[in-house]
Amino acid sequence: MALASILYPVGDSPAHGYKPEFTSEGQMKLPEDYRSWIYLSTGLDMSYTANAMPMGHHMFDNVFVDPGAYAEFLKTGTWPDGTTFMLEARMALSKGSINQSGNYQSDNVMGREVHVKDSKRFKSGWGFFAFDDDKTATMIPEKASCYSCHQQHAAVDTTFVQFYPTLLPIAKVKGTLSVSYQKESKEDTKE
Amino acid sequence: MALASILYPVGDSPAHGYKPEFTSEGQMKLPEDYRSWIYLSTGLDMSYTANAMPMGHHMFDNVFVDPGAYAEFLKTGTWPDGTTFMLEARMALSKGSINQSGNYQSDNVMGREVHVKDSKRFKSGWGFFAFDDDKTATMIPEKASCYSCHQQHAAVDTTFVQFYPTLLPIAKVKGTLSVSYQKESKEDTKE
Repeated sequence: MALASILYPVGDSPAHGYKPEFTSEGQMKLPEDYRSWIYLSTGLDMSYTANAMPMGHHMFDNVFVDPGAYAEFLKTGTWPDGTTFMLEARMALSKGSINQSGNYQSDNVMGREVHVKDSKRFKSGWGFFAFDDDKTATMIPEKASCYSCHQQHAAVDTTFVQFYPTLLPIAKVKGTLSVSYQKESKEDTKE
Repeated sequence: MALASILYPVGDSPAHGYKPEFTSEGQMKLPEDYRSWIYLSTGLDMSYTANAMPMGHHMFDNVFVDPGAYAEFLKTGTWPDGTTFMLEARMALSKGSINQSGNYQSDNVMGREVHVKDSKRFKSGWGFFAFDDDKTATMIPEKASCYSCHQQHAAVDTTFVQFYPTLLPIAKVKGTLSVSYQKESKEDTKE
Protein backbone atom coordinates (compact mmCIF):
# COMPACT_ATOMS: atom_id res chain seq x y z
CA MET A 1 0.00 0.00 0.00
CA ALA A 2 1.37 3.40 -0.99
CA LEU A 3 2.09 5.86 1.79
CA ALA A 4 -0.41 8.34 0.36
CA SER A 5 -3.27 5.88 0.72
CA ILE A 6 -2.40 5.34 4.38
CA LEU A 7 -2.17 9.06 5.09
CA TYR A 8 -5.17 10.08 3.01
CA PRO A 9 -7.54 7.11 2.87
CA VAL A 10 -10.41 7.76 0.47
CA GLY A 11 -13.63 8.01 2.41
CA ASP A 12 -12.17 9.43 5.63
CA SER A 13 -12.64 13.01 4.58
CA PRO A 14 -16.29 14.13 4.53
CA ALA A 15 -15.80 15.55 1.03
CA HIS A 16 -14.75 12.11 -0.19
CA GLY A 17 -18.05 10.65 0.91
CA TYR A 18 -20.24 12.28 -1.77
CA LYS A 19 -22.75 9.95 -3.37
CA PRO A 20 -25.23 11.09 -6.03
CA GLU A 21 -28.79 11.28 -4.71
CA PHE A 22 -32.02 10.84 -6.64
CA THR A 23 -35.67 11.30 -5.76
CA SER A 24 -38.08 8.37 -6.07
CA GLU A 25 -39.13 9.89 -9.44
CA GLY A 26 -35.53 9.69 -10.71
CA GLN A 27 -34.76 13.38 -10.39
CA MET A 28 -31.22 14.16 -9.29
CA LYS A 29 -30.62 16.30 -6.21
CA LEU A 30 -28.22 19.23 -6.62
CA PRO A 31 -24.85 18.46 -4.97
CA GLU A 32 -24.79 21.76 -3.09
CA ASP A 33 -21.24 21.40 -1.80
CA TYR A 34 -19.59 21.09 -5.24
CA ARG A 35 -17.43 24.20 -4.76
CA SER A 36 -15.44 22.23 -2.17
CA TRP A 37 -14.79 19.42 -4.70
CA ILE A 38 -11.69 19.02 -6.82
CA TYR A 39 -11.31 21.77 -9.41
CA LEU A 40 -10.46 20.50 -12.90
CA SER A 41 -10.36 23.52 -15.19
CA THR A 42 -12.03 26.64 -16.57
CA GLY A 43 -12.80 27.70 -20.11
CA LEU A 44 -13.95 31.01 -21.56
CA ASP A 45 -16.55 31.07 -24.36
CA MET A 46 -15.60 27.54 -25.45
CA SER A 47 -17.56 26.35 -28.45
CA TYR A 48 -17.66 23.09 -30.37
CA THR A 49 -19.16 24.66 -33.50
CA ALA A 50 -17.18 26.78 -35.91
CA ASN A 51 -19.85 29.45 -36.28
CA ALA A 52 -21.09 29.81 -32.72
CA MET A 53 -23.68 32.55 -32.26
CA PRO A 54 -22.09 35.46 -30.40
CA MET A 55 -23.65 35.73 -26.95
CA GLY A 56 -23.24 39.49 -26.40
CA HIS A 57 -21.23 38.73 -23.26
CA HIS A 58 -18.41 36.47 -22.15
CA MET A 59 -18.93 33.38 -20.05
CA PHE A 60 -16.65 31.22 -17.93
CA ASP A 61 -17.20 27.48 -17.36
CA ASN A 62 -15.71 25.97 -14.20
CA VAL A 63 -15.54 22.17 -13.88
CA PHE A 64 -15.38 20.25 -10.58
CA VAL A 65 -15.39 16.52 -9.81
CA ASP A 66 -16.19 14.80 -6.52
CA PRO A 67 -13.04 14.02 -4.51
CA GLY A 68 -13.62 10.26 -4.25
CA ALA A 69 -13.82 9.89 -8.03
CA TYR A 70 -10.73 12.08 -8.45
CA ALA A 71 -8.74 9.91 -6.02
CA GLU A 72 -9.74 6.81 -8.01
CA PHE A 73 -8.79 8.47 -11.31
CA LEU A 74 -5.32 9.29 -9.97
CA LYS A 75 -4.82 5.60 -9.22
CA THR A 76 -6.43 4.00 -12.29
CA GLY A 77 -7.16 6.60 -14.98
CA THR A 78 -10.82 5.50 -14.89
CA TRP A 79 -14.04 6.80 -13.34
CA PRO A 80 -15.88 4.65 -10.77
CA ASP A 81 -19.66 4.44 -10.48
CA GLY A 82 -20.89 7.50 -8.62
CA THR A 83 -18.44 9.86 -10.35
CA THR A 84 -20.07 13.28 -10.54
CA PHE A 85 -18.90 16.25 -12.60
CA MET A 86 -20.30 19.75 -12.10
CA LEU A 87 -19.99 22.35 -14.85
CA GLU A 88 -20.76 25.81 -13.49
CA ALA A 89 -21.24 28.69 -15.95
CA ARG A 90 -20.59 32.22 -14.72
CA MET A 91 -21.06 35.56 -16.44
CA ALA A 92 -17.72 37.26 -17.08
CA LEU A 93 -17.07 40.90 -16.18
CA SER A 94 -14.27 43.10 -17.46
CA LYS A 95 -14.00 46.55 -15.88
CA GLY A 96 -14.60 46.46 -12.15
CA SER A 97 -12.70 47.43 -9.00
CA ILE A 98 -9.12 47.91 -10.21
CA ASN A 99 -9.43 45.54 -13.16
CA GLN A 100 -9.06 47.36 -16.49
CA SER A 101 -9.04 44.63 -19.12
CA GLY A 102 -9.41 40.90 -19.52
CA ASN A 103 -12.18 39.07 -17.68
CA TYR A 104 -13.04 37.90 -14.18
CA GLN A 105 -15.96 35.92 -12.79
CA SER A 106 -19.13 37.48 -11.42
CA ASP A 107 -21.58 36.18 -8.83
CA ASN A 108 -24.06 35.60 -11.67
CA VAL A 109 -24.26 31.81 -12.08
CA MET A 110 -25.81 31.19 -15.48
CA GLY A 111 -26.16 27.45 -15.24
CA ARG A 112 -25.13 24.26 -13.51
CA GLU A 113 -24.87 20.97 -15.37
CA VAL A 114 -24.06 17.57 -13.94
CA HIS A 115 -22.57 14.54 -15.67
CA VAL A 116 -22.93 11.49 -13.44
CA LYS A 117 -21.93 7.85 -13.83
CA ASP A 118 -24.23 5.05 -12.71
CA SER A 119 -24.05 1.87 -14.77
CA LYS A 120 -27.27 0.49 -13.30
CA ARG A 121 -29.38 3.62 -13.58
CA PHE A 122 -28.39 4.89 -17.04
CA LYS A 123 -28.47 2.87 -20.26
CA SER A 124 -25.25 4.45 -21.56
CA GLY A 125 -23.65 4.43 -18.10
CA TRP A 126 -23.83 8.20 -17.71
CA GLY A 127 -26.57 10.81 -17.28
CA PHE A 128 -26.70 14.58 -17.84
CA PHE A 129 -28.79 16.87 -15.64
CA ALA A 130 -29.24 20.64 -16.06
CA PHE A 131 -29.97 22.50 -12.82
CA ASP A 132 -30.96 26.10 -13.26
CA ASP A 133 -31.62 27.59 -9.85
CA ASP A 134 -33.38 24.41 -8.82
CA LYS A 135 -32.42 21.87 -6.18
CA THR A 136 -33.54 18.95 -8.36
CA ALA A 137 -33.27 18.27 -12.08
CA THR A 138 -34.81 15.90 -14.58
CA MET A 139 -32.43 13.83 -16.67
CA ILE A 140 -31.68 15.17 -20.16
CA PRO A 141 -33.03 12.51 -22.58
CA GLU A 142 -30.37 10.14 -23.95
CA LYS A 143 -31.07 11.17 -27.53
CA ALA A 144 -29.77 14.71 -26.80
CA SER A 145 -26.60 15.74 -28.61
CA CYS A 146 -24.53 16.02 -25.41
CA TYR A 147 -24.56 12.21 -25.12
CA SER A 148 -23.49 11.47 -28.70
CA CYS A 149 -20.85 14.23 -28.72
CA HIS A 150 -19.30 13.00 -25.47
CA GLN A 151 -19.37 9.41 -26.75
CA GLN A 152 -17.72 10.33 -30.03
CA HIS A 153 -15.08 12.85 -28.92
CA ALA A 154 -14.29 12.56 -25.21
CA ALA A 155 -10.83 11.36 -24.21
CA VAL A 156 -11.83 9.01 -21.35
CA ASP A 157 -15.13 7.18 -20.82
CA THR A 158 -17.30 9.97 -22.34
CA THR A 159 -15.57 12.70 -20.25
CA PHE A 160 -13.58 15.56 -21.80
CA VAL A 161 -10.31 14.77 -20.05
CA GLN A 162 -8.51 16.44 -22.99
CA PHE A 163 -9.58 19.79 -21.47
CA TYR A 164 -8.45 18.91 -17.90
CA PRO A 165 -4.71 19.56 -17.88
CA THR A 166 -3.94 17.73 -14.63
CA LEU A 167 -5.82 14.57 -15.70
CA LEU A 168 -4.77 14.06 -19.34
CA PRO A 169 -1.19 13.00 -18.44
CA ILE A 170 -2.61 10.39 -16.04
CA ALA A 171 -4.90 8.89 -18.69
CA LYS A 172 -1.92 8.69 -21.05
CA VAL A 173 0.22 6.86 -18.50
CA LYS A 174 -2.60 4.52 -17.46
CA GLY A 175 -3.53 3.80 -21.10
CA THR A 176 -7.20 4.71 -20.67
CA LEU A 177 -7.64 7.12 -23.60
CA SER A 178 -10.60 6.21 -25.81
CA VAL A 179 -9.94 4.74 -29.26
CA SER A 180 -11.91 7.54 -30.94
CA TYR A 181 -9.93 10.24 -29.12
CA GLN A 182 -6.61 8.63 -30.00
CA LYS A 183 -7.67 8.49 -33.64
CA GLU A 184 -8.76 12.16 -33.64
CA SER A 185 -5.51 13.23 -31.95
CA LYS A 186 -3.46 11.51 -34.63
CA GLU A 187 -5.47 13.23 -37.36
CA ASP A 188 -4.98 16.59 -35.61
CA THR A 189 -1.23 16.03 -35.57
CA LYS A 190 -1.15 15.20 -39.28
CA GLU A 191 -2.85 18.48 -40.26
CA MET B 1 -22.20 24.50 17.85
CA ALA B 2 -23.56 24.37 14.32
CA LEU B 3 -24.25 20.96 12.84
CA ALA B 4 -21.76 21.57 10.02
CA SER B 5 -18.90 22.05 12.47
CA ILE B 6 -19.71 18.72 14.13
CA LEU B 7 -19.94 16.87 10.82
CA TYR B 8 -16.96 18.56 9.20
CA PRO B 9 -14.58 19.60 11.95
CA VAL B 10 -11.75 21.73 10.61
CA GLY B 11 -8.49 19.85 10.99
CA ASP B 12 -9.89 16.33 10.64
CA SER B 13 -9.43 16.22 6.90
CA PRO B 14 -5.80 15.96 5.78
CA ALA B 15 -6.34 18.85 3.36
CA HIS B 16 -7.42 21.04 6.28
CA GLY B 17 -4.13 20.45 8.01
CA TYR B 18 -1.97 22.51 5.63
CA LYS B 19 0.54 24.76 7.35
CA PRO B 20 2.99 26.96 5.43
CA GLU B 21 6.55 25.65 5.66
CA PHE B 22 9.76 27.64 5.46
CA THR B 23 13.43 26.67 5.30
CA SER B 24 15.84 27.87 7.99
CA GLU B 25 16.88 30.62 5.52
CA GLY B 26 13.28 31.88 5.31
CA GLN B 27 12.50 30.44 1.89
CA MET B 28 8.97 29.15 1.49
CA LYS B 29 8.37 25.55 0.42
CA LEU B 30 5.95 25.02 -2.48
CA PRO B 31 2.58 23.68 -1.24
CA GLU B 32 2.54 20.88 -3.79
CA ASP B 33 -1.02 19.76 -3.03
CA TYR B 34 -2.67 23.12 -3.80
CA ARG B 35 -4.84 21.70 -6.61
CA SER B 36 -6.82 19.83 -3.94
CA TRP B 37 -7.46 23.08 -2.03
CA ILE B 38 -10.59 25.23 -2.29
CA TYR B 39 -10.98 26.86 -5.70
CA LEU B 40 -11.85 30.56 -5.56
CA SER B 41 -11.95 31.81 -9.14
CA THR B 42 -10.31 32.17 -12.54
CA GLY B 43 -9.54 35.23 -14.64
CA LEU B 44 -8.42 35.60 -18.24
CA ASP B 45 -5.83 38.25 -19.15
CA MET B 46 -6.77 40.37 -16.13
CA SER B 47 -4.83 43.59 -15.94
CA TYR B 48 -4.73 46.41 -13.43
CA THR B 49 -3.23 48.93 -15.86
CA ALA B 50 -5.24 50.56 -18.63
CA ASN B 51 -2.56 50.10 -21.29
CA ALA B 52 -1.31 46.60 -20.54
CA MET B 53 1.25 45.32 -23.02
CA PRO B 54 -0.34 42.64 -25.21
CA MET B 55 1.23 39.29 -24.41
CA GLY B 56 0.82 37.63 -27.81
CA HIS B 57 -1.17 34.87 -26.14
CA HIS B 58 -3.99 34.51 -23.63
CA MET B 59 -3.44 33.44 -20.05
CA PHE B 60 -5.72 32.07 -17.32
CA ASP B 61 -5.14 32.69 -13.60
CA ASN B 62 -6.62 30.14 -11.18
CA VAL B 63 -6.78 30.99 -7.47
CA PHE B 64 -6.91 28.44 -4.64
CA VAL B 65 -6.89 28.86 -0.84
CA ASP B 66 -6.07 26.26 1.79
CA PRO B 67 -9.22 24.57 3.16
CA GLY B 68 -8.62 25.47 6.82
CA ALA B 69 -8.43 29.19 6.01
CA TYR B 70 -11.53 28.90 3.82
CA ALA B 71 -13.51 27.25 6.63
CA GLU B 72 -12.51 30.09 8.96
CA PHE B 73 -13.48 32.72 6.37
CA LEU B 74 -16.94 31.19 6.01
CA LYS B 75 -17.44 31.62 9.77
CA THR B 76 -15.84 35.03 10.34
CA GLY B 77 -15.11 36.78 7.02
CA THR B 78 -11.45 37.06 8.10
CA TRP B 79 -8.24 35.18 7.33
CA PRO B 80 -6.38 33.39 10.16
CA ASP B 81 -2.60 33.21 10.43
CA GLY B 82 -1.36 30.51 8.08
CA THR B 83 -3.82 31.42 5.32
CA THR B 84 -2.20 30.56 1.99
CA PHE B 85 -3.39 31.60 -1.47
CA MET B 86 -2.01 30.06 -4.64
CA LEU B 87 -2.33 31.88 -7.96
CA GLU B 88 -1.57 29.53 -10.84
CA ALA B 89 -1.09 30.98 -14.33
CA ARG B 90 -1.75 28.71 -17.32
CA MET B 91 -1.30 29.34 -21.02
CA ALA B 92 -4.64 29.42 -22.83
CA LEU B 93 -5.31 27.45 -26.01
CA SER B 94 -8.12 27.98 -28.49
CA LYS B 95 -8.38 25.41 -31.29
CA GLY B 96 -7.77 21.90 -30.07
CA SER B 97 -9.66 18.60 -30.04
CA ILE B 98 -13.26 19.58 -30.83
CA ASN B 99 -12.95 23.14 -29.47
CA GLN B 100 -13.34 25.73 -32.23
CA SER B 101 -13.36 29.07 -30.44
CA GLY B 102 -12.98 30.63 -27.01
CA ASN B 103 -10.20 29.42 -24.72
CA TYR B 104 -9.32 26.46 -22.53
CA GLN B 105 -6.38 25.75 -20.23
CA SER B 106 -3.22 23.97 -21.32
CA ASP B 107 -0.76 21.91 -19.29
CA ASN B 108 1.71 24.80 -19.62
CA VAL B 109 1.92 26.35 -16.13
CA MET B 110 3.47 29.78 -16.61
CA GLY B 111 3.84 30.69 -12.96
CA ARG B 112 2.81 30.03 -9.38
CA GLU B 113 2.56 32.81 -6.83
CA VAL B 114 1.76 32.48 -3.16
CA HIS B 115 0.28 35.07 -0.80
CA VAL B 116 0.65 33.87 2.79
CA LYS B 117 -0.35 35.36 6.15
CA ASP B 118 1.97 35.16 9.15
CA SER B 119 1.79 38.11 11.55
CA LYS B 120 5.01 37.13 13.29
CA ARG B 121 7.13 36.45 10.22
CA PHE B 122 6.11 39.35 7.95
CA LYS B 123 6.18 43.03 8.90
CA SER B 124 2.96 43.77 7.00
CA GLY B 125 1.37 40.48 8.09
CA TRP B 126 1.55 38.95 4.61
CA GLY B 127 4.28 37.76 2.25
CA PHE B 128 4.38 37.13 -1.51
CA PHE B 129 6.49 34.34 -3.02
CA ALA B 130 6.93 33.58 -6.73
CA PHE B 131 7.67 29.93 -7.52
CA ASP B 132 8.66 29.24 -11.08
CA ASP B 133 9.32 25.55 -11.46
CA ASP B 134 11.11 25.54 -8.12
CA LYS B 135 10.16 23.82 -4.88
CA THR B 136 11.27 26.79 -2.77
CA ALA B 137 10.98 30.56 -3.27
CA THR B 138 12.52 33.67 -1.78
CA MET B 139 10.12 36.27 -0.46
CA ILE B 140 9.35 39.17 -2.79
CA PRO B 141 10.69 42.30 -1.01
CA GLU B 142 8.03 44.33 0.83
CA LYS B 143 8.74 47.43 -1.25
CA ALA B 144 7.43 45.64 -4.38
CA SER B 145 4.24 47.03 -5.90
CA CYS B 146 2.19 43.88 -5.19
CA TYR B 147 2.21 44.77 -1.47
CA SER B 148 1.14 48.42 -1.86
CA CYS B 149 -1.50 47.57 -4.49
CA HIS B 150 -3.04 44.84 -2.32
CA GLN B 151 -2.98 47.16 0.70
CA GLN B 152 -4.65 50.00 -1.17
CA HIS B 153 -7.28 48.17 -3.21
CA ALA B 154 -8.04 44.72 -1.79
CA ALA B 155 -11.50 44.12 -0.35
CA VAL B 156 -10.49 42.13 2.75
CA ASP B 157 -7.19 42.20 4.66
CA THR B 158 -5.02 42.80 1.53
CA THR B 159 -6.76 39.96 -0.41
CA PHE B 160 -8.77 40.56 -3.61
CA VAL B 161 -12.03 39.11 -2.31
CA GLN B 162 -13.84 41.40 -4.79
CA PHE B 163 -12.76 38.92 -7.50
CA TYR B 164 -13.87 35.78 -5.58
CA PRO B 165 -17.62 35.57 -6.18
CA THR B 166 -18.37 33.04 -3.43
CA LEU B 167 -16.48 35.03 -0.76
CA LEU B 168 -17.55 38.64 -1.40
CA PRO B 169 -21.12 38.11 -0.10
CA ILE B 170 -19.69 36.63 3.11
CA ALA B 171 -17.40 39.61 3.71
CA LYS B 172 -20.39 41.91 3.18
CA VAL B 173 -22.51 40.04 5.72
CA LYS B 174 -19.69 39.79 8.25
CA GLY B 175 -18.77 43.46 7.81
CA THR B 176 -15.10 42.79 7.07
CA LEU B 177 -14.68 44.84 3.87
CA SER B 178 -11.73 47.23 4.06
CA VAL B 179 -12.39 50.97 4.40
CA SER B 180 -10.43 51.69 1.20
CA TYR B 181 -12.43 49.13 -0.79
CA GLN B 182 -15.75 50.45 0.49
CA LYS B 183 -14.70 53.97 -0.50
CA GLU B 184 -13.62 52.85 -4.00
CA SER B 185 -16.84 50.89 -4.49
CA LYS B 186 -18.92 53.97 -3.67
CA GLU B 187 -16.92 56.04 -6.15
CA ASP B 188 -17.40 53.34 -8.81
CA THR B 189 -21.15 53.47 -8.25
CA LYS B 190 -21.23 57.25 -8.63
CA GLU B 191 -19.52 57.18 -12.04
